[in-house]
Amino acid sequence: MSYARKLPGYLVNRFRGWRATHYAENKSWFRHLAQEGQHPRSMLIACCDSRVHVTAIFGADQGEFFIHRNIANLVPPYTPDGDHHGTSAAVEYAVTALKVAHLLVVGHSNCGGVRGCHDMCAGKAPELASGSSFVGNWMEILRPGYEATAEFTDPEARIAAMEKQAVRISINNLMTFPFVKDAVENETLTLHGLWHDIGEGGLEAYDPETDSFASVL
Amino acid sequence: MSYARKLPGYLVNRFRGWRATHYAENKSWFRHLAQEGQHPRSMLIACCDSRVHVTAIFGADQGEFFIHRNIANLVPPYTPDGDHHGTSAAVEYAVTALKVAHLLVVGHSNCGGVRGCHDMCAGKAPELASGSSFVGNWMEILRPGYEATAEFTDPEARIAAMEKQAVRISINNLMTFPFVKDAVENETLTLHGLWHDIGEGGLEAYDPETDSFASVL
Amino acid sequence: MSYARKLPGYLVNRFRGWRATHYAENKSWFRHLAQEGQHPRSMLIACCDSRVHVTAIFGADQGEFFIHRNIANLVPPYTPDGDHHGTSAAVEYAVTALKVAHLLVVGHSNCGGVRGCHDMCAGKAPELASGSSFVGNWMEILRPGYEATAEFTDPEARIAAMEKQAVRISINNLMTFPFVKDAVENETLTLHGLWHDIGEGGLEAYDPETDSFASVL
Amino acid sequence: MSYARKLPGYLVNRFRGWRATHYAENKSWFRHLAQEGQHPRSMLIACCDSRVHVTAIFGADQGEFFIHRNIANLVPPYTPDGDHHGTSAAVEYAVTALKVAHLLVVGHSNCGGVRGCHDMCAGKAPELASGSSFVGNWMEILRPGYEATAEFTDPEARIAAMEKQAVRISINNLMTFPFVKDAVENETLTLHGLWHDIGEGGLEAYDPETDSFASVL
Repeated sequence: MSYARKLPGYLVNRFRGWRATHYAENKSWFRHLAQEGQHPRSMLIACCDSRVHVTAIFGADQGEFFIHRNIANLVPPYTPDGDHHGTSAAVEYAVTALKVAHLLVVGHSNCGGVRGCHDMCAGKAPELASGSSFVGNWMEILRPGYEATAEFTDPEARIAAMEKQAVRISINNLMTFPFVKDAVENETLTLHGLWHDIGEGGLEAYDPETDSFASVL
Repeated sequence: MSYARKLPGYLVNRFRGWRATHYAENKSWFRHLAQEGQHPRSMLIACCDSRVHVTAIFGADQGEFFIHRNIANLVPPYTPDGDHHGTSAAVEYAVTALKVAHLLVVGHSNCGGVRGCHDMCAGKAPELASGSSFVGNWMEILRPGYEATAEFTDPEARIAAMEKQAVRISINNLMTFPFVKDAVENETLTLHGLWHDIGEGGLEAYDPETDSFASVL
Repeated sequence: MSYARKLPGYLVNRFRGWRATHYAENKSWFRHLAQEGQHPRSMLIACCDSRVHVTAIFGADQGEFFIHRNIANLVPPYTPDGDHHGTSAAVEYAVTALKVAHLLVVGHSNCGGVRGCHDMCAGKAPELASGSSFVGNWMEILRPGYEATAEFTDPEARIAAMEKQAVRISINNLMTFPFVKDAVENETLTLHGLWHDIGEGGLEAYDPETDSFASVL
Repeated sequence: MSYARKLPGYLVNRFRGWRATHYAENKSWFRHLAQEGQHPRSMLIACCDSRVHVTAIFGADQGEFFIHRNIANLVPPYTPDGDHHGTSAAVEYAVTALKVAHLLVVGHSNCGGVRGCHDMCAGKAPELASGSSFVGNWMEILRPGYEATAEFTDPEARIAAMEKQAVRISINNLMTFPFVKDAVENETLTLHGLWHDIGEGGLEAYDPETDSFASVL
């Protein structure tokens, strides 16, 4: 591991500041969390995008949300083939071990992963479609979302629609996991679909009554 | 998607509060982020654990860190088989598209995933070792870390050592990705291993000179 | 008071959000409440339990309920000995100063205080029975409720029955206060006994005609 | 218990509405709370006043705060005499059984209990000073706060100062409880003093560095 490097100094400095302030002021809570374990109410599945801070937008502090983040907040279909499935493992742990009450899938505007999927499906990104790109292979999960948005002739509008398709597909795929389906049917787990507008600070939620997304405000 | 439910009201209330304060005060930055795209300096790979807030401990605001979170902050070995690999896709996107300068793997204390791996490898968690558990299959990535800590006779000490093994193994696996290895060798990317003590607010970093973890303070 | 600490930052953030939304939208009502004083219609006596939100379940906003919360929603017998009696003081203030029209005692399921009383009375919690535990001494108020439920052989069923005994005993004790008895007899005050099922969202009310609790739905 | 009455119909109606909406949308959380027990991060001690909604101002939902409410948010001194001490029992349960990380004492403006204490100490409320009033005996806990504010010649200013004295005295009294003192010294519990302005939607926190209250905004 000789190629590993020391932590950049500016992060050391900031950590020191956090420890002297936020940690010092909440030490009792951090000790409680360490000694008593975590009891998060919800799991969040969000994008890796640096512009999405799901704890901040929901006023959450340490201990509240169990958070999985991947490219484009996608959940693959249930595939019990023995391979390493990071997303499926996170969902399994949250639902069966932590017994979270809610599972929120949080999509967002300006998603680079969704744009890549659009371009790949439109034949404009051969490097993603080659089969040798992890991003391309991952974004195949969203291909049905490209096909479902054929009515959009404007690429930007189609990409925006695909961002919400990413949320829909993930929730539908979640229901293919037996332990998710069981928990939903037993009413010990609820699923929620959200889409966050970064620039405008907006939040839309999927409304099952209208089968569409609408602002929560 | 009729099984999806409305967003719990307390999250709507909190989001409204965030929008009226934090967003309103930083609107220009959020619009900049939306219009100019993200330019994060670093990628972080951290655990889903609700007690780990990597943005908070590093004083980071929206736009700074591209963040992937999975169970036990693991990176699987390079496996270009065409399947959906969420972690590998996130690393590929960060390194080849965003060209981040640093990639930090952040382990932590009291990790339930690492404990599960220990119990599975010790023959005490047959449900994880059955092959039908996504958590068990995922934690197989850390099995070499169990084997490398055979000198610990106390289970708690071994689990703690395995938490740091998770960081080492992830960094070693990162170097099996050609685009990571190239970027490191070209000195456009540095790798960093960290371990965060939740209860004590500590942070240890892997030091390549001593081949061990030491407090950054 | 040097041991006092700053308010945790997440609560500051959330308060700022409340002030910028809920307060801003209701400022006229809050100013009215401050200038004209409170005129609550009812007093509620409920448990401290974090899972019981009596304002939420009754759709109440600020100004409606004068609320006393203690362990297991108990009212001690009338004891005019000059000591500090917090519950009795709250009842006296509500009935004689605010002249509330209703006084509701709200018990609930899964009550840790009632469980502790059961275990203490059954000889299984010597730490509560020692005389040096404030919880134990407080729960002595409910000892008649243990004795009144001797027909239950299953401990869980007995504990559930004791939760309703806590409501009955409190209401009976309320009638030992001269100012409560007078108000009830003058028909300026009514007493009400309730039991809330947390998990099932249920509410049972004491029905004087049948001398038992029945669902209000 | 023949003097108990049925629940007023408007509360039945509101409860039905809550059950059909808020409960229905959060059923999984309520079941989780019932089955897994409560794990509140903090205890709040607030006034019974109908105008103070501590969950609302902190964006808190069911499960977050263990709440004791009495007249004027007072904590009496440690008095292990075997009597029924409701406040002391609540504190003991929160600190020793629930192991909360924070204990917040929340005072407020326009406090009728504090005004009564002022008038009683100023010789203008003989009915409270008679020894036969539970409110008067309870407010004796705050008498040192009257004496500590002798410099105020304006009664209204003195009453406002006494509202903050109520917070100070409660926190000082909390430290007379051995289990509170131990937890504070072991850094598993922090104490916090707050004062809420109802009409202006303000919040001041006691700052140990300046030994005074200052706005948190």
